[in-house]
Amino acid sequence: MSPALALWKRYQNHLCLCPSIGLSLDIARMNFSDDFLPSIQPAITEAYSAMDALEAGAIANPDEKRMVGHYWLRNPALAPSPELRQAITSALTQIKSFAADIHSAKIASPSGKPFINLLIIGIGGSALGPQFIADALTSSADKMKTFFFDNTDPDGMDRELHRIGNLAQTLTVVISKSGGTKETRNGMLAAQAAYQAANLHFAQHAVAVTGDGSELDQAAKAGAWLARFPMWDWVGGRTSVTSAVGLLPAALQGFDIDALLAGARDTDSLTRLHDTARNPAARLALMWFHAGSGKGLKDMVVLPYKDRLLLFSRYLQQLVMESLGKEKDLAGHTVLQGLAVYGNKGSTDQHAYVQQLREGINNFFVTFIEVLSDSTSPSAPSSSLFVEKDVTSGDYLHGFFQGTRSALTQTQRESITLTIDRLDARAIGSLIALFERAVGLYASLVNINAYHQPGVEAGKKAATAVINLQLKILTHLRGGGAGTAEQIAAALKLPDEVETIHLTLRHLVANPAHKIKSTGNPLTATYSA
Amino acid sequence: MSPALALWKRYQNHLCLCPSIGLSLDIARMNFSDDFLPSIQPAITEAYSAMDALEAGAIANPDEKRMVGHYWLRNPALAPSPELRQAITSALTQIKSFAADIHSAKIASPSGKPFINLLIIGIGGSALGPQFIADALTSSADKMKTFFFDNTDPDGMDRELHRIGNLAQTLTVVISKSGGTKETRNGMLAAQAAYQAANLHFAQHAVAVTGDGSELDQAAKAGAWLARFPMWDWVGGRTSVTSAVGLLPAALQGFDIDALLAGARDTDSLTRLHDTARNPAARLALMWFHAGSGKGLKDMVVLPYKDRLLLFSRYLQQLVMESLGKEKDLAGHTVLQGLAVYGNKGSTDQHAYVQQLREGINNFFVTFIEVLSDSTSPSAPSSSLFVEKDVTSGDYLHGFFQGTRSALTQTQRESITLTIDRLDARAIGSLIALFERAVGLYASLVNINAYHQPGVEAGKKAATAVINLQLKILTHLRGGGAGTAEQIAAALKLPDEVETIHLTLRHLVANPAHKIKSTGNPLTATYSA
Repeated sequence: MSPALALWKRYQNHLCLCPSIGLSLDIARMNFSDDFLPSIQPAITEAYSAMDALEAGAIANPDEKRMVGHYWLRNPALAPSPELRQAITSALTQIKSFAADIHSAKIASPSGKPFINLLIIGIGGSALGPQFIADALTSSADKMKTFFFDNTDPDGMDRELHRIGNLAQTLTVVISKSGGTKETRNGMLAAQAAYQAANLHFAQHAVAVTGDGSELDQAAKAGAWLARFPMWDWVGGRTSVTSAVGLLPAALQGFDIDALLAGARDTDSLTRLHDTARNPAARLALMWFHAGSGKGLKDMVVLPYKDRLLLFSRYLQQLVMESLGKEKDLAGHTVLQGLAVYGNKGSTDQHAYVQQLREGINNFFVTFIEVLSDSTSPSAPSSSLFVEKDVTSGDYLHGFFQGTRSALTQTQRESITLTIDRLDARAIGSLIALFERAVGLYASLVNINAYHQPGVEAGKKAATAVINLQLKILTHLRGGGAGTAEQIAAALKLPDEVETIHLTLRHLVANPAHKIKSTGNPLTATYSA
Repeated sequence: MSPALALWKRYQNHLCLCPSIGLSLDIARMNFSDDFLPSIQPAITEAYSAMDALEAGAIANPDEKRMVGHYWLRNPALAPSPELRQAITSALTQIKSFAADIHSAKIASPSGKPFINLLIIGIGGSALGPQFIADALTSSADKMKTFFFDNTDPDGMDRELHRIGNLAQTLTVVISKSGGTKETRNGMLAAQAAYQAANLHFAQHAVAVTGDGSELDQAAKAGAWLARFPMWDWVGGRTSVTSAVGLLPAALQGFDIDALLAGARDTDSLTRLHDTARNPAARLALMWFHAGSGKGLKDMVVLPYKDRLLLFSRYLQQLVMESLGKEKDLAGHTVLQGLAVYGNKGSTDQHAYVQQLREGINNFFVTFIEVLSDSTSPSAPSSSLFVEKDVTSGDYLHGFFQGTRSALTQTQRESITLTIDRLDARAIGSLIALFERAVGLYASLVNINAYHQPGVEAGKKAATAVINLQLKILTHLRGGGAGTAEQIAAALKLPDEVETIHLTLRHLVANPAHKIKSTGNPLTATYSA
């Protein structure tokens, strides 16, 4: 048999067809040997059981003593108590009714004009999902135009405020599970100031999505904001997109959130199967294990051939890397786990780095995402335009996908291909649920906790220390204590903090609002108020 | 000495201060030993010489028998002939005068109204630079609003056309060095069709940037487009941003292209120094060499703490990975070189994957980019807003940068910090030139050709083969030859192409314009016209 026919046979043997969710998964171009799948069957069987326990309400995040319940959001009947079921369904009802009221202008801006812009303030799990969905599903039918503050960069906020232009008809949704995220708090304050500068009352434009009783929840309640939507401790930030975090923005934009939830629910059902041949999430997890020897030794390059999926890799960076990038396994052994994710879209990226993928360092595997239907609307002009006789732009997109896939196979670079029938709200729900479960199963395979993020705190604490140090420096300088970074460190009795002090001083001087001056070379400069 | 003070000493010893270009580079948190820099001095000295020869007009791309002259674009006096000097300066004059004519409406839309929108059609080197610059320098002073076709996704084009809305006042710039890039050609045809559907004449809105005599150049000439701007064979796509490719869009948007060129020119001057202690490009190249043992064993994570630099990592993916991702070295040995690049922006990415960076697999080094001035405009409201007493949002951004940098050092993860005074056109020019030269020097260190991309052709050829196969399939089916993929492959006497045929059929069926039907399970379906 020719190599091409052998590969076709392998393709037929391994193709996982999932018509119920409009998706298929091809793993034939991963170079696992015939005994790989049988040999790993016991491990994946254990992973299925761990997942079953988690979905039944076991404490799956032992560090934080939390249940892990994002699966219930799509099928409340599975939640382990009537209270949880009720909480999920009533939040969904509240989201739909609020969005309907905004669209009908029953809830309108104080001037009486409808809200037409939507500013979403959040970061990490409270931004990546909404950004991904907004970019994937936007169309001429959108009910609102979306904007984001997803950082604490004031210049970035000013740029976004300029793009918005008309704050009078802008609804602002502040999203923070803990309600205490500084970037989001700062974004909220900047938005508040901008509304005030436009003689508008922020509270009459504001909505909160946050945990009950959080700092943000209290502020929204005290300020009589337009509405508050719940977040729960059993939904992690990076799996919160099918809670109010993702659903409220999606509903406000006019997207079909029922279809999105249905896609996720049906994918959950399918990927609950303890049948590895028919379970695409299990197959993904097993391929990740194969590719990186269960240690993340190869990066995952995500290449969707579809502009609307550009942000999927950024969404997956959080879902995958924050879940899997762990120092310790569940037994407390140091394992330094992880799985690095990057990628943008094809065929664009072919013109950027496929040179390296095909010929250079073989430290990756590709996950192609193919979308069979070129158009999201039957009347779309470019989709039906023939650029040559019998050839559309979409045929070229498909041709480039196949071409790059072949070119990588020729040089023994591995790839997975995920094919979806079309790109709509249902498919987005499926993609989200598919990778969520693949991450959960892979975490079981390598025996780590996918649901905590202990490494994130250190950076936050160190940042808080820098802010506190800045205050001490300012007090010292304003009290007349001019000096070099080393002298200031000595005066503050913090000799070990000299580099932090030096960097902070350099930043203070560059920003006139602080009124700090310096003279001389940055390394030896003297600073004064 | 405490570890903190030892690190401060190391910082002072190794800091590369470049006040002439408003930049400094800190490599102290890379764990190279004291003998690393002396031991590699002979190799970097050779790299300096190779770069000198290249800049003097040597054939630095032996495969393609091309000179490599992007450095001359910023300083035409260095070009090796009067003709080249003249070509560069007259193109620059033409760009400025055309942009001025567009801004003054001397060149206006056929209706007489000024052009206010700019649609840029290009891919790879003809899109990544313009996209990076547009996002980095946009402000309320912009003269035109920019849009991009950077792929052959028809749905993506329709989405962008919807965003543009008003084609009547839209200028379209088609950019392709070779003039034959299919994605760009398809984008041009889609734009043409859209103008036509709006009863507008494409040629009266169209500008070309391309090589003299290319397919695109001929079409623009024959069609009497508004203008044509040159590309030269001695400018590679991924280093073309300081040619008309980047300068024309930037000038049209109203950005200061003289400052951009000056930033690049001054950085070129500085990084020509054969003095490793004072040459930031050499120091970057040496740190890449150190981090990945000269083999790209660690990924480069690019973390700019500035929203406007979000697209820098995408720009660098092409510049770095296409230049360095090579199978063979210059001696013909198989080396599988490369350097994978990813990242978005801080502090946003802290909420996505810093968990993995700090605690998980240690397969990377970080390049932090810090911008000292928080604001690009003195009157920017959010930049001067205090979110707490004596603390701005920008102080938090700075605090998060320092916090994450410390947190990574605590767990022995390596990082470089590049600090720039402010983000403006000059700084963008500096960043571009700095990394261009770092790539060139690194390529010399590992003895590869940074200026070709032999691996890109295979995918393009394979894609063309798929398109040709599609035409054969359509002819066969329309001639009455219904069958399964295997039957069609046999009938076409292309048995080895059965998987390609299967995938192509699946795509044809999903797109009604082709009028192909199928019945049955995708693996065994029968297809007919």
